[in-house]
Amino acid sequence: MNASSAPVTASVVPPARVGDPVEAVDTPALLVDLDAFERNVARMAARARALGVRLRPHAKTHKSPDVALRQVAAGAVGVCVQKVAEAEAMVAGGIADVFVSNEVVGERKLARLAALAGRARLSVCVDDAANAADLSRAVLAAATTIDVFVEVDVGGARCGVAPGAPALELARAVDALPGLCFAGLHAYHGSAQHLRTDAERREAIGRACALAARTREQIEDAGIAVPLITGAGTGTFEIEGASGVYGEIQAGSYVFMDADYARNQPAEDSVFARFEHSLFILSTVMSRPQPARAVCDAGHKASSSDSGYPQVVDVPGATYAGASDEHGVIVLGVPGPVPALGERIRLVPGHCDPTVNLHDWLVGIRQGRVECLWPVSARGPGF
Amino acid sequence: MNASSAPVTASVVPPARVGDPVEAVDTPALLVDLDAFERNVARMAARARALGVRLRPHAKTHKSPDVALRQVAAGAVGVCVQKVAEAEAMVAGGIADVFVSNEVVGERKLARLAALAGRARLSVCVDDAANAADLSRAVLAAATTIDVFVEVDVGGARCGVAPGAPALELARAVDALPGLCFAGLHAYHGSAQHLRTDAERREAIGRACALAARTREQIEDAGIAVPLITGAGTGTFEIEGASGVYGEIQAGSYVFMDADYARNQPAEDSVFARFEHSLFILSTVMSRPQPARAVCDAGHKASSSDSGYPQVVDVPGATYAGASDEHGVIVLGVPGPVPALGERIRLVPGHCDPTVNLHDWLVGIRQGRVECLWPVSARGPGF
Repeated sequence: MNASSAPVTASVVPPARVGDPVEAVDTPALLVDLDAFERNVARMAARARALGVRLRPHAKTHKSPDVALRQVAAGAVGVCVQKVAEAEAMVAGGIADVFVSNEVVGERKLARLAALAGRARLSVCVDDAANAADLSRAVLAAATTIDVFVEVDVGGARCGVAPGAPALELARAVDALPGLCFAGLHAYHGSAQHLRTDAERREAIGRACALAARTREQIEDAGIAVPLITGAGTGTFEIEGASGVYGEIQAGSYVFMDADYARNQPAEDSVFARFEHSLFILSTVMSRPQPARAVCDAGHKASSSDSGYPQVVDVPGATYAGASDEHGVIVLGVPGPVPALGERIRLVPGHCDPTVNLHDWLVGIRQGRVECLWPVSARGPGF
Repeated sequence: MNASSAPVTASVVPPARVGDPVEAVDTPALLVDLDAFERNVARMAARARALGVRLRPHAKTHKSPDVALRQVAAGAVGVCVQKVAEAEAMVAGGIADVFVSNEVVGERKLARLAALAGRARLSVCVDDAANAADLSRAVLAAATTIDVFVEVDVGGARCGVAPGAPALELARAVDALPGLCFAGLHAYHGSAQHLRTDAERREAIGRACALAARTREQIEDAGIAVPLITGAGTGTFEIEGASGVYGEIQAGSYVFMDADYARNQPAEDSVFARFEHSLFILSTVMSRPQPARAVCDAGHKASSSDSGYPQVVDVPGATYAGASDEHGVIVLGVPGPVPALGERIRLVPGHCDPTVNLHDWLVGIRQGRVECLWPVSARGPGF
């Protein structure tokens, strides 16, 4: 290695200490309102129980084994992740059942996945027969076994084989490969999560359910059992959960919520409407150059903007109007309550998953004090 | 600390080893084409010399002391950063002269900055007299001194006092405060960097130069020397550099370039046109669900999208058409060269600074081999 032998990153130091008042947390930082967080965890667990489906929350939202352990303690069967590196972090953090709800491609990654399957119950998606064969070779070499879900494209237009015959063909291939246990179908409709009206979401998920059910029927008609259909996210899980088709739901964002999900119009009597924002970017006003402008210290490197800018709480009439790398420009309602230089304001992230990925610590707050510091152990691009 | 005592992040492990062929680099990873990078460093250093201005490259682009050391070796006087945490990482990495080209607000940050001023030559911006007084108290408590630039808003509409009388008033305040050495004006016009035509950029920077020059005159007329006007970025540095007003240029992106800067129309005979893309996201095709669709493993968590999606190189006719957190959807020109499952493709980031911030390592490549691994030591939201 050249010049430096280890990554001494700037953010190894946490932005606070346990016991500190929230006023002592350095910014920008990610705060978790623990009361709201715990209510979210409990509400989702209760709803999954009421629906009669397994809950396997997606950990790509929080990338934190500490959060995952609390979800499992509330009744989750394990977690989903998207990357082998995330799976390794979750297993290292004590999660015994991890589903990589994604394809894993490449010899080096497959070898790591296969090795990890010797330390926890592991499952993974495939959407290609040659990839399934590579996976089989990897688990044989590692002397492990792995559960395999065939990913079916039920409308998301991302990964996955087409429903029906292509899925059957791949299920047959998986079923025949040593070391692989065909576990069912992964049928996640990602783009439906943010359809704004209940009617739009019901239509999209209705189609997904029909495609998943028909595919299961075709596979079972061919003599291969389909133990489980898994999928769903925070925007639609109540539809999949009540469908009789899905046996497991993968919602993740519900633990934190975000400004983009807040733009969804919830169905009547939906538990969705009762999830609370529990994740906040704590930011400091670092410049007050104009009466109607405050500049805060949270820009692109503290808050994602892929699903819109964060929303300002605490300051009525204020709008986060623009981000640069290290700055957020906030337009104030004037006259009105205006924050002074050095004042701290909370922002609700536009999109929780990529925002958490920018930070190294989740700072748990209760009654105005830092109760815990959870490292974002699975942070990073994930290889 | 609750549950975990240190952040064992997933990405402490580098994606390659020195000596590996590029084919062995795990993905997603950030590659630096060292030949192109070195040419960029040399071209900018030569241009600054020819213009007769000091070069102080902005390290918020790369967050890497290894890169900064090479810039200094080529003639840079030091680097700029935006955050105290970045300054600490640069000083720890051996950079002797660091300018925090931003306001630093809050007692804890000011104390760290003041302490750091005992280990390297430090400078910082102010745009508020009370903040300048806080800074003075911090350096007195640390028994250090610090150079202070008054930030003037010359068109960027972000931080900074108004040109003219407000800047004079603040310069007077700084000049009178113990421990602070008034060092001149920070006059950076960020939003001009990405104006697409030379005419637009010349107009915006022409106004900035006039405002900065007039402000200097007012301050010097009041008997306070203005040793330096500093500013400029990769999009406009040739204009400020030739203006006779600016004595120092702060361009940063030139070391890597990105897809957004590539949309600028360079002036004739501009060195800008000769900067090369030297930074690439290396990504693996992880799904080939349709003839015209490839899904790669670089989404929002591997590539910023605040200034547009990355561009696909290596595959003519291919477009990066959509990102989700861990996926990039690439639309292929069919018929045409189409990448197979597992094939690796390079992407040019849409915006280099926030993309680098998503990664822990820069993988230096020369002649198809990993020559060095540079940790992104100043990565993080920066507190």
